[in-house]
Amino acid sequence: MNQDNFNCPIPHHDDERISIAHGGGGLMMHRLLEKTIFPRVSPEQAHASQDSALIADSLALSTDSFVVSPLFFPGGDIGRLSVFGTTNDLAMVGAEANYLSLGLILEEGFPKCDLERILASIDAAQKEVGVKVVTGDTKVVPRGKGDGVYINTAGVGRLINPVLRLAPGQVCDGDHIIVSGDIGRHEASIIVARKEFGIEADIASDLAALTPTVRKLIDAGLDLHCLRDLTRGGLGSALHEICHSNRKNLSFVLDSEKLPLSQEVNSLAELLGFDPLFMANEGRFVAFVSPADSEQTLAIMQSMPGGNAAAVIGTVRQEERSQVWVKSAYGSEKKLPILNGDQLPRIC
Amino acid sequence: MNQDNFNCPIPHHDDERISIAHGGGGLMMHRLLEKTIFPRVSPEQAHASQDSALIADSLALSTDSFVVSPLFFPGGDIGRLSVFGTTNDLAMVGAEANYLSLGLILEEGFPKCDLERILASIDAAQKEVGVKVVTGDTKVVPRGKGDGVYINTAGVGRLINPVLRLAPGQVCDGDHIIVSGDIGRHEASIIVARKEFGIEADIASDLAALTPTVRKLIDAGLDLHCLRDLTRGGLGSALHEICHSNRKNLSFVLDSEKLPLSQEVNSLAELLGFDPLFMANEGRFVAFVSPADSEQTLAIMQSMPGGNAAAVIGTVRQEERSQVWVKSAYGSEKKLPILNGDQLPRIC
Repeated sequence: MNQDNFNCPIPHHDDERISIAHGGGGLMMHRLLEKTIFPRVSPEQAHASQDSALIADSLALSTDSFVVSPLFFPGGDIGRLSVFGTTNDLAMVGAEANYLSLGLILEEGFPKCDLERILASIDAAQKEVGVKVVTGDTKVVPRGKGDGVYINTAGVGRLINPVLRLAPGQVCDGDHIIVSGDIGRHEASIIVARKEFGIEADIASDLAALTPTVRKLIDAGLDLHCLRDLTRGGLGSALHEICHSNRKNLSFVLDSEKLPLSQEVNSLAELLGFDPLFMANEGRFVAFVSPADSEQTLAIMQSMPGGNAAAVIGTVRQEERSQVWVKSAYGSEKKLPILNGDQLPRIC
Repeated sequence: MNQDNFNCPIPHHDDERISIAHGGGGLMMHRLLEKTIFPRVSPEQAHASQDSALIADSLALSTDSFVVSPLFFPGGDIGRLSVFGTTNDLAMVGAEANYLSLGLILEEGFPKCDLERILASIDAAQKEVGVKVVTGDTKVVPRGKGDGVYINTAGVGRLINPVLRLAPGQVCDGDHIIVSGDIGRHEASIIVARKEFGIEADIASDLAALTPTVRKLIDAGLDLHCLRDLTRGGLGSALHEICHSNRKNLSFVLDSEKLPLSQEVNSLAELLGFDPLFMANEGRFVAFVSPADSEQTLAIMQSMPGGNAAAVIGTVRQEERSQVWVKSAYGSEKKLPILNGDQLPRIC
């Protein structure tokens, strides 16, 4: 880091500096957002607790930066991720992405051939999901001040049903909690691609566009209350976020027996001591739905590519205090812990 | 750079890699955009040759990433720059920014106190220009994979006058070319802040919101044809871009005697052998206007903060081939060269 960049006195304590865990999707990240970032630039965002903002005329705006390492992994690459990462965030508020901006931060020395592959991947992804890159920006940083390429996309999308509000505050007592497929694949694929733990396994990321599934659910007129994609921090962190921002003293009770998990991801998680509930995904989401529409929601999810393992994993109940409970095979319930840092940095 | 990031064979030649000049706003950057980026992800952008895209319902979308070094410089910092950089791009198509997204890429170890100063600066800037950060994203990269903080903003804005089209293709024979203030201040302030050349001088960046000036020009009903902010590559590169994308065989003739330049910037440029025509600005723009409205345009520009040196610097004339000419004090004309790389990396 360029020391000329600092205006403040050099910090004496580690807690006065940014750490890797501040980017991990867990407690540290949420504290940084809630104590440092939101109060200064966007107090309304803290209340919304959504990755997309509703703006004028039934439009939504969302953004994501991508710093995944490695850039190419089984099941995808940073290009495909940078399109679906943002279009998925828009889908979670019920919006279909129409326009994308593309910001590239390239490191000096990065092979043009790899840039071309990433751009081709962006193009394939934008065509697949029906969105268009309409504006962009390119910066170059010197060697050692980046890591090949970082990408930012921002997306503007239109609400599929302008009167449907999908938000944590819409979750109700009795709602079914449904996950759209088996969990943990993205993080598992990155672990294998990094070769850090010497593990060889054939696991592809779940990276996928969620818009087609969301469109089907909305077009079917189902009584959907809240959707959330399971990225950094996994299903567990998504549930904690929704639980603690619904402001209605609702608790979530997960049935540990119902969590959809592939044999490969389960084995890898056991080997490394990771909890799949907190492993990252890039093509899965959780839906909170009226019990009457639970069966049809599940059927639509299961009919989509990658969705065959979709499952009702829990229910919402009124309590004195919001909690996320995990019910064991024997019926006992214990609190789901909150992820402090992350299990693996730079997964997206 | 993480070698696992590469999928292509390791390049043998430097021209197969990204170089600093690809980010410099000159010929190298335009070749990268036109040969590598636009054809793959956004062929329409190549024709538009604008930094903002018009999207549905009189809205415009723009994005910029900011990697400026140092983060704090006389007259501004990366926070203020990241707000005005994007709102200025929107102003250039005649749009007033309403909503911003904010993507932060933080380096592990970055002092929180400096982050707080930058966020406070973003907040002051958003209030000054009347835009709101409504959504965002935060990533952390390990030490040595960033440089403190990189910021991306994307902005959505509404056209001030929905029927007014500001674009290179609107430029006409006989138009006056007007610059909104003295040039080169931003690059000069960064040079001084970096202390690389051992120069001590009291020069503040021209960093400013252009929206108020543009709103006044549009509200006055002036016959404006094209606006362009003078960032990387400076006034010279902006003129080349507009000249070569208007597709009407129009040439621009600049009067070198009329270029507004402060004594401080002029001295610094002479000392370092820099051409002020290619030095970066962050609060200046060039306007192409009907001669009948030239005087009123100039009067409005001069009435705005920082605009007292605004000047009519040239005219547009029909020729067999589009060229940018510079007329000397003796009346002779020579072609304005095209900037190849940039004079200084990471100025924005």
